[in-house]
Amino acid sequence: MSSSTPEVLTAAVLTVSDSSARGERTDLSGPAVAQALKQHNFSIIATEIVPDEEPAIKQAIQRLTKAARLVVTTGGTGIAERDVTPEATRAVCDRLLEGVAERMRIAGEKTTSFAALSRAVCGTCGQSIVLNVPGSPRGSVEALQAVIDLMPHALDLLRGKTRHD
Amino acid sequence: MSSSTPEVLTAAVLTVSDSSARGERTDLSGPAVAQALKQHNFSIIATEIVPDEEPAIKQAIQRLTKAARLVVTTGGTGIAERDVTPEATRAVCDRLLEGVAERMRIAGEKTTSFAALSRAVCGTCGQSIVLNVPGSPRGSVEALQAVIDLMPHALDLLRGKTRHD
Amino acid sequence: MSSSTPEVLTAAVLTVSDSSARGERTDLSGPAVAQALKQHNFSIIATEIVPDEEPAIKQAIQRLTKAARLVVTTGGTGIAERDVTPEATRAVCDRLLEGVAERMRIAGEKTTSFAALSRAVCGTCGQSIVLNVPGSPRGSVEALQAVIDLMPHALDLLRGKTRHD
Repeated sequence: MSSSTPEVLTAAVLTVSDSSARGERTDLSGPAVAQALKQHNFSIIATEIVPDEEPAIKQAIQRLTKAARLVVTTGGTGIAERDVTPEATRAVCDRLLEGVAERMRIAGEKTTSFAALSRAVCGTCGQSIVLNVPGSPRGSVEALQAVIDLMPHALDLLRGKTRHD
Repeated sequence: MSSSTPEVLTAAVLTVSDSSARGERTDLSGPAVAQALKQHNFSIIATEIVPDEEPAIKQAIQRLTKAARLVVTTGGTGIAERDVTPEATRAVCDRLLEGVAERMRIAGEKTTSFAALSRAVCGTCGQSIVLNVPGSPRGSVEALQAVIDLMPHALDLLRGKTRHD
Repeated sequence: MSSSTPEVLTAAVLTVSDSSARGERTDLSGPAVAQALKQHNFSIIATEIVPDEEPAIKQAIQRLTKAARLVVTTGGTGIAERDVTPEATRAVCDRLLEGVAERMRIAGEKTTSFAALSRAVCGTCGQSIVLNVPGSPRGSVEALQAVIDLMPHALDLLRGKTRHD
């Protein structure tokens, strides 16, 4: 199993933020997510910043999933009008993994009850996985940490390494 | 933050019940929900009763969300044939907040394992929130209590008061 | 209530597995699920095996729900390309019971964190219920045990035995 003898897996980080895309705000969450991914043996092959626009997010996810097995988006998962990352993700994913989003919410509630308001989703896009995490540096890493252990096995399954047990 | 210096928010209660709409059963849940909302600093601007008919529920939700920031429906969330409140709510809401429904179910299971059968949803409708709770007086208040602390912050976010933390 | 004076309810077990359908693998999960259902006072009226093909699964579910109140499928709930049981189930069900799938995932995580990757759903199909459980003998029975206590009451509600409490 990949979890006992980990291989290096490719990942990309997509920061979704109007202010960071305009250069008005330093993106702290993207680098924090990238750092956490490296600690879990992922190799970061791309980091990008897009504004909170559904077409831009969709295009970036589709492009990044062609190059990386795991694409983590940070930002745009709340309920404000400009938060459209979950919509973009649903639109380009083949299948949603409800249990992954559920686990992030339940883990997040240990830090803040407002985690229940997150609309973050996780889905498959070809043989890659797209994972939404919140936009704050702390919240993004906490959400990632809650589910990162699932990813190597999930990516194996997507590539056809099935086993029945 | 609104949760530390609470402002008065408007709410409406919609009882969904064939027997109460016909006047054959006294509506106990609607008043119980209204009472609980008042205790959490909401001002009740309307209470209505409609039968378990999807068009009537949809019209009432759409009308009430124009006047109140929070619309709580009680009843029609089960799995019997006449239970159509979730369908009506999904049809008129812009976005669903899965984590809110999830929290009501998980909290409800502490009282009865049958809470897992609830199909209640929560969603946004413009700058208002629609929340389904069960039809029983006790169940309706318990479900509301499980998530009411989220509502002032969620309503702030919907009105554009975003902050990143 | 049916849970205190249990009546015998009809159930069918549908094993979804390419290898078992081809006769290359002995189906252990189907008999394990059937055994667990009998222990909970269900009468098994049919057991079938179909390959991981959406049309075959849909046809089997539709046929079996005409004869049995509860149809439990085992297999095809993962994220591999051939796993299509949830898609077939969603396509033929009238309503999904999200809380039932959620409870299976959360219970499953006590055994393996990979339970969060299960895409199993539960839904109503007329007056019957369709429940997806995983394909492994152990996982299938554990998932079933996590929610079987809900089924007699849910089936009562579907048949119109409503009560308000």
